[in-house]
Amino acid sequence: MNYKLIGRFLARIIFIEAFFLLPALFISLGYGEKDAITGFLETILLLLLVAIPLGGLCRNAGHRFGVREGMLCVSMSWLIMSLLGALPFFLSRAIPSYIDAFFETASGFSTTGASILSDVEALPKGLLYWRSFTHWVGGMGVLVFTLAFSSGENGAGFTMHLLRAESPGPDVGKLVPKMKQTAKILYIIYIVMTVVNIFFLLLGGLSLLDAVCLGFGTAGTGGFGVKNDSFASYSPYIQNVTTLFMFLFGVNFSCYFLLLMRQFKSVLRDEELRLYMGIAALSTLLIGLNTFTNSFDGDFWVALRHAAFQVSSIMTTTGFATVDFDKWHTFSKGILLMLMLIGACAGSTGGGFKVSRLLILVKNLRRNIRQVINPNKVMAIRSGGRVMDEKVITNTNAYLAAYVFIMVVSVLMIGVDGQSIETNISAVFACINNIGPGLGAVGPTCNYSLFSGFSKILLSLNMLLGRLEIFPFLVLLSRSTWRRR
Amino acid sequence: MNYKLIGRFLARIIFIEAFFLLPALFISLGYGEKDAITGFLETILLLLLVAIPLGGLCRNAGHRFGVREGMLCVSMSWLIMSLLGALPFFLSRAIPSYIDAFFETASGFSTTGASILSDVEALPKGLLYWRSFTHWVGGMGVLVFTLAFSSGENGAGFTMHLLRAESPGPDVGKLVPKMKQTAKILYIIYIVMTVVNIFFLLLGGLSLLDAVCLGFGTAGTGGFGVKNDSFASYSPYIQNVTTLFMFLFGVNFSCYFLLLMRQFKSVLRDEELRLYMGIAALSTLLIGLNTFTNSFDGDFWVALRHAAFQVSSIMTTTGFATVDFDKWHTFSKGILLMLMLIGACAGSTGGGFKVSRLLILVKNLRRNIRQVINPNKVMAIRSGGRVMDEKVITNTNAYLAAYVFIMVVSVLMIGVDGQSIETNISAVFACINNIGPGLGAVGPTCNYSLFSGFSKILLSLNMLLGRLEIFPFLVLLSRSTWRRR
Repeated sequence: MNYKLIGRFLARIIFIEAFFLLPALFISLGYGEKDAITGFLETILLLLLVAIPLGGLCRNAGHRFGVREGMLCVSMSWLIMSLLGALPFFLSRAIPSYIDAFFETASGFSTTGASILSDVEALPKGLLYWRSFTHWVGGMGVLVFTLAFSSGENGAGFTMHLLRAESPGPDVGKLVPKMKQTAKILYIIYIVMTVVNIFFLLLGGLSLLDAVCLGFGTAGTGGFGVKNDSFASYSPYIQNVTTLFMFLFGVNFSCYFLLLMRQFKSVLRDEELRLYMGIAALSTLLIGLNTFTNSFDGDFWVALRHAAFQVSSIMTTTGFATVDFDKWHTFSKGILLMLMLIGACAGSTGGGFKVSRLLILVKNLRRNIRQVINPNKVMAIRSGGRVMDEKVITNTNAYLAAYVFIMVVSVLMIGVDGQSIETNISAVFACINNIGPGLGAVGPTCNYSLFSGFSKILLSLNMLLGRLEIFPFLVLLSRSTWRRR
Repeated sequence: MNYKLIGRFLARIIFIEAFFLLPALFISLGYGEKDAITGFLETILLLLLVAIPLGGLCRNAGHRFGVREGMLCVSMSWLIMSLLGALPFFLSRAIPSYIDAFFETASGFSTTGASILSDVEALPKGLLYWRSFTHWVGGMGVLVFTLAFSSGENGAGFTMHLLRAESPGPDVGKLVPKMKQTAKILYIIYIVMTVVNIFFLLLGGLSLLDAVCLGFGTAGTGGFGVKNDSFASYSPYIQNVTTLFMFLFGVNFSCYFLLLMRQFKSVLRDEELRLYMGIAALSTLLIGLNTFTNSFDGDFWVALRHAAFQVSSIMTTTGFATVDFDKWHTFSKGILLMLMLIGACAGSTGGGFKVSRLLILVKNLRRNIRQVINPNKVMAIRSGGRVMDEKVITNTNAYLAAYVFIMVVSVLMIGVDGQSIETNISAVFACINNIGPGLGAVGPTCNYSLFSGFSKILLSLNMLLGRLEIFPFLVLLSRSTWRRR
């Protein structure tokens, strides 16, 4: 294991986090928020005090950088960023418990949006901004950011292994031959889309800070808002804009790259995109039909608007809410639970199992059924006209197994708190899939403060596990990772 | 497709079902239960009126019998047996609705034990016997029975394909070179163990009929009892005997065969058996510790007795209850939910996902994690010292996917009834895993009568799907099954 290179990389990440804290500090300065200012200043100082000596110590790192180093880098940086990013909340005494602050920050970086705060509006503006900014940078990935915009030249293996561990989905596609260029293109698309989203929110009459915070929450498909009732009190225009943009940020970003390259046909033929749109449309229609009599006084169009918002919010794993969907009919709640599991497209900022993995599972299952009848026929699985690598299929199956194991064990372990089964199941679903609000006692009008410290730490780890798609952490538990070669 | 051979086989199955009804008829005659006697007589007559012409029509069947025919035979016979086996309940007016009667019978044959009856004790004795007998014959399989004890000589492919579709677990082991002999040995072990179980129940002071009914329910790991409170009012002796025998019937029967062959070492080395015992012991201990303060006035040994009974009952997917475990702490309920998913050993009469499949998933996951670090190393998965066929692993993964899909879609569909999410999830878990009681409104003191006809049919199909391990039914949905060759 090349510990020095890992150390150097972590020092760089911590340094960048300190840099990211500056705008939040300026906002607090502008609003004259004394506690927040000291919180930010102390944190930045502490970060530099760690980063500078660590970077100095690990100056002479070799160049050998393999998968193991990549996995360790990714899991460590996300954990450390969350641990350190929690400090402003804790040091400013806005969140008095450090575990709560860690939960909130892990929820931010992992773009979950689960909160332990019952009164968001009481938070200082600087912290509100920082909270939403963690969503934005967590959405596309901090390491991707570092790679895209760092000046130093890294080895191709270095970039590849890091991107592979941080990017969601069963397979990482290169848009252009160089990984560094790919990362840059992704981030530029991301920035432009965020700016357009904020622009449309400003047109709806929001203040700049609110628009920026909500734009960050939408872009990262995070879910932290700036109001206690999430999106309920905004105008239908703001709600519809957000419905649209949540949906757009849940699409594989390589589709946007293809659009820029004028390859419209290959976008239209994209199986994942078609399934994603199909599931969203069908779910919206079913929920609209199911709820308009019970919850919306027979007004179908209002029901459809709220259904579209909620489907877009849950399927992209954002977690904003315009209504208390925990009060909806069980059928609609069941659809939302299913959408929580499926999640958004691979290569988007959304979480969950990913539509492309679902496609692979369905195709593999279909093949297995046919194989029962024709045991000796060799059958390949195709995707977009090409034969799919069997390794991708095996990995997807292993991913499903890991995903189910972790969910079952987590539900069991937070069971010690004694909440209802529905609350526990939906809390774990909402955390590992990076959604935020669940059902029952963690529904959209509630928060996670009712859980014990133990469960909060467990749920925080679930969020990070879910964001990094489990394997970077699981690899750390394997003996062969630590064996000397 | 060799329809004539399938028809001839179905005729034989229906004929055997008529034969199975005779003891129940005699019991009703003995007790002078008029309605039940007419119900049985009408059913037997009807069955013969169907079986005899069907058998005659399909007399000149060819010998070609492939996988497709095997799958169709198995799924059709279980469906038809449940549809026809429901008639005595319906015709005797003991269960006025035919859908309810079908639910009860499918629950019986699939060894689920979920009931729509609120007053079991009011049922005529003959019907009570028939209800429990469906468990017994469903446990080891009707087709296995037919093959083991039919006089006609069938082709080896015929026997193999049927056994493979009906027997639980990822892999069918032959005990002896001939499949017919294997089936016979399995049934003889099954009969002897059932008789011993009934004998021990008689020692506890039960009446012969009660002992036989409970013995059938235990042997098939079914769960239908003869009292409204399941096992709550029986003596600790009866409860402990049943704990032990439920556990024994959840063990792979080939272990018993190996014991008979004096191969003690290979039984001790059996990984599945060891994991099965480990999970059961750990769960019992955890539930005992979790419940003794809350539910049993601090009496640890009483708590442990009930915990052992419930763990044995849920893990083997029997479904008997000595207490209302729905009132237990969420942690204990979470363990029970997990045990519902895991299930018993392959090759036992128990249902669920099976411990051996869990083992395969864990081993495959471990391999995948190692593969991340060493992408080019070829690694085999071993079981009992031998390298496992990759096909078994692929099939297990596909099984997991199918299992998760069907559960998610079923939970969604019965959601239209508007019960709570906890009720819906545990109802589907309890039905597809062939357990019986769930949590919430389908807990051990409740029954399934609250669901609509639509949901009852869906849950009945879930039970049959679960008993036959999904694929025999899924294969029927594939186009390539029906293509002419």
